[in-house]
Amino acid sequence: MKMASRNKSTAAATSGRFAYAGLDRVIHERARLSLLTSLIANPSGLLFGELKQLCALTDGNLSRHLQVLQEAELITVSKSFDRIRPQTICRITSFGRERFLAYLSELENVVRDAAAAAASEPVRGTIGKLAPA
Amino acid sequence: MKMASRNKSTAAATSGRFAYAGLDRVIHERARLSLLTSLIANPSGLLFGELKQLCALTDGNLSRHLQVLQEAELITVSKSFDRIRPQTICRITSFGRERFLAYLSELENVVRDAAAAAASEPVRGTIGKLAPA
Repeated sequence: MKMASRNKSTAAATSGRFAYAGLDRVIHERARLSLLTSLIANPSGLLFGELKQLCALTDGNLSRHLQVLQEAELITVSKSFDRIRPQTICRITSFGRERFLAYLSELENVVRDAAAAAASEPVRGTIGKLAPA
Repeated sequence: MKMASRNKSTAAATSGRFAYAGLDRVIHERARLSLLTSLIANPSGLLFGELKQLCALTDGNLSRHLQVLQEAELITVSKSFDRIRPQTICRITSFGRERFLAYLSELENVVRDAAAAAASEPVRGTIGKLAPA
């Protein structure tokens, strides 16, 4: 059984304990997280319109986020033709897959840390329970 | 056993399937995620300096993010005195705890979706495996 420490300095002693440096900002942004999850689930690629629907994004937002992911070399964006209609196909790269899996592993740490912290929350009176109004 | 669909439209048919609307942007930002994890682990509160260390943030960044969290009523920030030195104590509110737990539940969905997608990835030749250089 662990001792319940009342010394706040103990928690703070571990510098950067909750910094989560592995949460790469390029990937962590919500729309891009959504795009990468869609693309890792569909490694042969998804069309612009399919991504738009799956991720509930506007054309403008989708274009902007695809560009960020492409510049980071996490995805490729290629144009082709379906008969006469131009198509934009997006695919996750193997580098993107690797980086995304590393990110997910850090994300699991966050969920684990926070869930453990929330579950083990000691009830120390009302001080942590104050509602804002 | 599920049928492996080769029809891309099937994936896209579920509108917003990967939108993760529950990933509240106020909480999702990396530094604030870090702060809330620290604070849910320490419900009796943490000092400014402790948070700074735990989350590896600068004074300026920490102040800015605390303000965002405070405006969203997820935390309280109060001043007191330790003998003659002023102290800033931050605490998660019960509303903040509730919102953070809802966020974590959505985050678990992301991890589950992405891990499942990555694990079940069908190897369909080289098309999804193209490295960017």
